[in-house]
Amino acid sequence: MCAQPAVGLGITLSVLAESESAAAALVVPSAPVGEHTSIEDVLAFAEHCDVVTFDHEHVPADVLAALVDSGVSVHPRPDALVYAQDKLAMRRRLTELGVPCPAWAEVRDEGELEAFGAEHGWPVVLKTPRGGYDGKGVRVIGSAAEARDWPLADGLLVEEAVPFSRELAVLVARSPMGQCAVWPVVETVQTDGICTEVLAPAPGLPDDLAAAASQAALTIAGALDVTGVMAVELFEVPVGDESDSGTTGFVVNELAMRPHNSGHWTIDGAVTSQFEQHLRAVLDLPLGDPRSRDRWTVMGNVLGGEYPELYPTYRHLMARDPAMKFHHYGKDVRPGRKIGHVNVGGDDLDDLRERARHATQFLQGVITE
Amino acid sequence: MCAQPAVGLGITLSVLAESESAAAALVVPSAPVGEHTSIEDVLAFAEHCDVVTFDHEHVPADVLAALVDSGVSVHPRPDALVYAQDKLAMRRRLTELGVPCPAWAEVRDEGELEAFGAEHGWPVVLKTPRGGYDGKGVRVIGSAAEARDWPLADGLLVEEAVPFSRELAVLVARSPMGQCAVWPVVETVQTDGICTEVLAPAPGLPDDLAAAASQAALTIAGALDVTGVMAVELFEVPVGDESDSGTTGFVVNELAMRPHNSGHWTIDGAVTSQFEQHLRAVLDLPLGDPRSRDRWTVMGNVLGGEYPELYPTYRHLMARDPAMKFHHYGKDVRPGRKIGHVNVGGDDLDDLRERARHATQFLQGVITE
Repeated sequence: MCAQPAVGLGITLSVLAESESAAAALVVPSAPVGEHTSIEDVLAFAEHCDVVTFDHEHVPADVLAALVDSGVSVHPRPDALVYAQDKLAMRRRLTELGVPCPAWAEVRDEGELEAFGAEHGWPVVLKTPRGGYDGKGVRVIGSAAEARDWPLADGLLVEEAVPFSRELAVLVARSPMGQCAVWPVVETVQTDGICTEVLAPAPGLPDDLAAAASQAALTIAGALDVTGVMAVELFEVPVGDESDSGTTGFVVNELAMRPHNSGHWTIDGAVTSQFEQHLRAVLDLPLGDPRSRDRWTVMGNVLGGEYPELYPTYRHLMARDPAMKFHHYGKDVRPGRKIGHVNVGGDDLDDLRERARHATQFLQGVITE
Repeated sequence: MCAQPAVGLGITLSVLAESESAAAALVVPSAPVGEHTSIEDVLAFAEHCDVVTFDHEHVPADVLAALVDSGVSVHPRPDALVYAQDKLAMRRRLTELGVPCPAWAEVRDEGELEAFGAEHGWPVVLKTPRGGYDGKGVRVIGSAAEARDWPLADGLLVEEAVPFSRELAVLVARSPMGQCAVWPVVETVQTDGICTEVLAPAPGLPDDLAAAASQAALTIAGALDVTGVMAVELFEVPVGDESDSGTTGFVVNELAMRPHNSGHWTIDGAVTSQFEQHLRAVLDLPLGDPRSRDRWTVMGNVLGGEYPELYPTYRHLMARDPAMKFHHYGKDVRPGRKIGHVNVGGDDLDDLRERARHATQFLQGVITE
């Protein structure tokens, strides 16, 4: 999706692609095939680049180090990226910074896990520090025994099961010169651990909470020396005792150091999309205006379902809703895989949600008219 | 600029490029080099295409015929395209359709030209029927003798010099199934025969004139069986006698059968850009909503000037105006060449015009702060 703003900015993109038929390879002028885990492949790729950036966090530390040593400009830098790669490192650093987090601990055996559950209550959330994505590498367990098949000895992250009322996300961009821009705080709606809907801005969010969440994102971006776009996923939680009924705060759930699904609404809904902003940031260009273009924007993720390809169904939706914006990733369809999204903006949130839901369910084959 | 919406639509673009360093070749995944005047090159190119379309009107008739004979889907079709290639054919057809045109004639010698001038008054506008662009192939002459070095014997188009108050343009898209969509009528501001600014919608345009102009564009698109985007360039002219003071009508100046400079504002200013709409139309997908996103959008063309490249100057403008959208074509800079444009939208037209003018003059080197 960075290919779209690259055209306007006059930037030529090259992607290190996992195969010649990779989705990104279909839309950029240069997509050499290689492995992001291979120092040789990555260095050869970087030779013809002015700046190298990432669309996931799984590039190994030794590859990142070799890349930096080669003299190419790398953004975000490995020293920042580690906090998106390693959830234990992230928890330690955010806690030092005073950013609200769930209660957490590093556990290395069942005894430590048992003690954490006894203190904070069962169930608890157990996470592998590295490699998780879309609910993978995360397990909610009701007792220490349920973790027996996980590699506890390597050190896992355990967190309290936060009694959240909903999930929020703040997207921030930061450039090497230190300029930052924050988009409006959004609500993310998850279904079976996968984000299915984003509402921008988060409906009914108190101004002070929005300001505190935005400030936390700016604090994290500055303290971690982030460059590029970072998504901060939050839980909105009740605070205080019963006399504060309705008052909420937040804790940070996850960090992602790249353009993120919670920001796909910005392609059509913000003056500057997260993808344009990421390019501006990693190239050390001044950042663009992150404001919303509509009162509300709703993003719906299209998940793979009944149909082997999207084209026949999206034709029908284009006829039904000429103002809806479709984003088709060109990926092979697999059940549950994110293969596209729709954006729709306007003044009537209920109408927008209904249209986005209809479109995504129709594209998935859940409904047929 | 079609590359941007192609990403979202899941379409893989290929461009027959004039060289490996052609601007379009820098942003699409496939750009074989060849000549648009060579049947062999064009047929070889078309072999891997589902649909072939055009970004200029200069593909020769024999190449178009060979392309159609090869069985590939071609949009717009040559039978329609001829009216954008040949200004005499266009004048004949529009006159048959009852669409308002300037007084015109085909002239083949000085005597016919003299007679036209005597009837409609000097000066007159003389045009080569084919090959004109941005003021080339057009000459305003005060007497028949001034045409002596032009190939009158081939048949030239002569038109009255229309006493227009301003220039307008209507952009329409039409799909093979016959669906049409019209964007708001815009004002185009020309400097030395080159469009420098577009105001969308045209300020102060009477509703009935806007409706009549839109209807004319729809009539032309339908009657000529246009597929894809067509721009209809208009002159706004006074009508009636002095008692109708202030009443205006229009005559058609030119047709372009492709996404057009007068529609570049739609990239950021309309729900569906002309480039997305052109792709939808030539692929026979349902058309998108052409409505404006802002009260006003101003487009400013960036012309080549003092600086050999845009990058150092556009950095400064990004810092000055974070809400401005830049479109950098990646073309070599030559004085007066269109090398990019800016779009800016909002409620205050004067402010938008001032910002667009500042940006384009700064990028051209006319002003330095």
